[in-house]
Amino acid sequence: MTITYGGHPGASPSARADASYESDEGFRVPHKTVIIGGGAAGLGAAGGVKAASPDAEVVVYTEYEDVAYSPCGIPYVHGKEISDFDKLFLATKEQYVSVGIDVHYETTVTKVDTAARKVHVEGEGAVSYDTLIFATGFDYADPGVPGKDLGGLYYVKNIRRAMEWDEVLDSVKTAVVIEATPLGVEMTTSLAHRGIETHLVDPHPWPLAEMADPDIMAPVEESWRELGVITHFNTTLKGFVGQGRVSSVATSDGEIPCDLVVVATHKVPNARLAAAAGLEIGSTGGVVVDERMATSVDGVFAAGDCTEIPHGLTRVPLQGLTGSHAYAQGKTAGQNAGGGDRRYKAVYVPWGTPAGKWIIGGASFGETTATALGIPYVVGQAQGISRARYYPGVKPVKVKLLAEPGSLRLIGAQIVGGEGIKERADFLAMAVKHGFTFHDLSAMENVYSPAIGALNEPIVVAATNGLEELRKAGKL
Amino acid sequence: MTITYGGHPGASPSARADASYESDEGFRVPHKTVIIGGGAAGLGAAGGVKAASPDAEVVVYTEYEDVAYSPCGIPYVHGKEISDFDKLFLATKEQYVSVGIDVHYETTVTKVDTAARKVHVEGEGAVSYDTLIFATGFDYADPGVPGKDLGGLYYVKNIRRAMEWDEVLDSVKTAVVIEATPLGVEMTTSLAHRGIETHLVDPHPWPLAEMADPDIMAPVEESWRELGVITHFNTTLKGFVGQGRVSSVATSDGEIPCDLVVVATHKVPNARLAAAAGLEIGSTGGVVVDERMATSVDGVFAAGDCTEIPHGLTRVPLQGLTGSHAYAQGKTAGQNAGGGDRRYKAVYVPWGTPAGKWIIGGASFGETTATALGIPYVVGQAQGISRARYYPGVKPVKVKLLAEPGSLRLIGAQIVGGEGIKERADFLAMAVKHGFTFHDLSAMENVYSPAIGALNEPIVVAATNGLEELRKAGKL
Repeated sequence: MTITYGGHPGASPSARADASYESDEGFRVPHKTVIIGGGAAGLGAAGGVKAASPDAEVVVYTEYEDVAYSPCGIPYVHGKEISDFDKLFLATKEQYVSVGIDVHYETTVTKVDTAARKVHVEGEGAVSYDTLIFATGFDYADPGVPGKDLGGLYYVKNIRRAMEWDEVLDSVKTAVVIEATPLGVEMTTSLAHRGIETHLVDPHPWPLAEMADPDIMAPVEESWRELGVITHFNTTLKGFVGQGRVSSVATSDGEIPCDLVVVATHKVPNARLAAAAGLEIGSTGGVVVDERMATSVDGVFAAGDCTEIPHGLTRVPLQGLTGSHAYAQGKTAGQNAGGGDRRYKAVYVPWGTPAGKWIIGGASFGETTATALGIPYVVGQAQGISRARYYPGVKPVKVKLLAEPGSLRLIGAQIVGGEGIKERADFLAMAVKHGFTFHDLSAMENVYSPAIGALNEPIVVAATNGLEELRKAGKL
Repeated sequence: MTITYGGHPGASPSARADASYESDEGFRVPHKTVIIGGGAAGLGAAGGVKAASPDAEVVVYTEYEDVAYSPCGIPYVHGKEISDFDKLFLATKEQYVSVGIDVHYETTVTKVDTAARKVHVEGEGAVSYDTLIFATGFDYADPGVPGKDLGGLYYVKNIRRAMEWDEVLDSVKTAVVIEATPLGVEMTTSLAHRGIETHLVDPHPWPLAEMADPDIMAPVEESWRELGVITHFNTTLKGFVGQGRVSSVATSDGEIPCDLVVVATHKVPNARLAAAAGLEIGSTGGVVVDERMATSVDGVFAAGDCTEIPHGLTRVPLQGLTGSHAYAQGKTAGQNAGGGDRRYKAVYVPWGTPAGKWIIGGASFGETTATALGIPYVVGQAQGISRARYYPGVKPVKVKLLAEPGSLRLIGAQIVGGEGIKERADFLAMAVKHGFTFHDLSAMENVYSPAIGALNEPIVVAATNGLEELRKAGKL
């Protein structure tokens, strides 16, 4: 799960959408779709094409040995929460063959010629298409320091490499995680669970600083301390040090000796091939798409981490969303590439992940992101519980809601707690999307049943507290 | 948690509300509020008065020895999920004294004279009030069969009696639960957990038949069988048999020998005192209130199980909602009785409870209730999961959505699964209230993080499947 609030307002793909729809007349039903990339977006796209056009020829090119596994599960196998990498596979290669999706493994597309509607494939030569879908995913941002060619630097991505690294981890005593991104947070937690002395190095003052607020992350940091994690915030990476293999990490805070480094820098769109093919690239470096996931070039679509998608409230383009987003975008791109008609709307970005001993989550803006974007807000918050106070397994649930001053329409939420975080984040993203106000949320009914829910839902209490604060301040 | 879809359309309290608001002019700030009843509604009301008018005199009369405990927790102590009745107490008697709420325990109000603004209290005589709040709660419906004065019939309600019955349960080998109401479902599950041979007798073809659909309850019934519960559906209660103490239950299906009977018949409003005082009583037998929880008599309010509240979609009055509803209604009644202004709106009724090895829940109408009320609907359903398929602790989550044909606005939902049911029910009740359609829910984003949420949220899949069915049928 990665979300980057990058880019600038104004570069809104959805502004382009309407014009693009008009050009759809005369769109011929395609016979062959080529998809570059075999991740969630690429396979979502393959399924989408087949849904719209069951007889279409669908060819997927991937540089990797596998498709159809869950890369998001990798940190949890490293952390021993999941027993085996085999469990991450979702489908067999035969299953793709049987539904008529032709996956070419370990195959690189070197060039795209959109005028000739051809891709150039290593070992296959020129391959023609009727419609093309870019699903080329992301790269980790270059850490930009000396020593990045040393051994012992682990970039979490491919399941085969993860299997190899997992064996390495058996002999690792000390590890350093570079940057408290969502992956960095997951890997820090997982390595600590595994009993490895884990250092986390990040230039910001708290983890996930570009999406989460410090009060939400404070319990996570505390639980990391309990797990033995050593955090280095406000700390700049200076380089990787070692002879052939990394033996320490140089930082603004001194050197940290280690056996292994997890480089969990930000995701950046892998849009090199798309840019070389002349597709419009946006302010985040992602491929610009409209609501049909169509790019600036006729017959060419894109989906997933290689694209950028506007935020529903600000229209600021976002990139590096979740696998769930990538899959849904892929389905949309695929259906449209297959001659169907499906839209992918701007996003309101529910997010969530385990972190330390807690689960954190939210939707759209927190105080930090709102402040960074210059968006004014009022806050309502509550420290609540997940079940009746006396029921075994009851967990804290802290909810913070942000609303637009005046209208009191929700613009975001952050949550930290023990259970029910994902479901609340999903709901709150819909609440932002549909313009629910503090009044709406304060008047919300909730299930009360001791084993599954408390008398007062924390979201309701947070909204009610927000109104109460405004009332006291004479602003309501 | 009890919900009864009783009464008839047309008797809408909210139709009365507008007229009532106009009569508010000249409402004097009250000095003394009397509250009859010390449950969730009564204590919510006491707090509400104090919030609106901190100096007001607040007197609560209860027939019981205690206030401020959670009766909803009682079945779980019997089932040994909760270790001790003491855990169910929420506050001490001193805490009420300290905030200026004067609770008179084991005290009966025998008569109310609204013209003289006086209540007659056993042992105290006539007590005057400025505003009065009825929070007299519910009774279990009279089973209406011979033998109901025998010993060994347990009506779950008061915590002191529950403590005594809990000791009795230690020597009970076989118990019969009368009616698969929400309490009946909880008690059946709890007694089975406790290792007691438990029979469940109900005249309907499946449990919770007046609110839940058979496909939602099927896994619950199966898990009861695994727990050793013997169910007797389509079975009429004929009587309780025994010499002084119940020794068997007579039914249309034969006699069931037993040591104890839990009488979990429907809740009916305890509105005798209110009716005798001349308050308008509605079609369900509950006190009629407007959005301020004001009754038909000036200065008199009512809240909780003794009232009836309109359903947001049909305006059909409902009674016997949850403790959460009672508390919120009490707060509203109290604030208005204290000179404030707060509204309680029509309800969309999220509900949920553990049942057997599952958790069930929903919001507003299921197929059974919609059919009973003559409301047309289309269905979208999905069998989903609560986490990534490979993540430990993953549980099934089945979602069924009902929408109005044509507009595809949600009119209700039912869920059965292992986790996240309460949060989904809360959300779906808001989705009904705010008119979300299958299209809205199908386009909903969701958190994807293996430990807390699956790639595809079951609500989204259910809505998408519903659209797909309509498309196939040429209705979209």
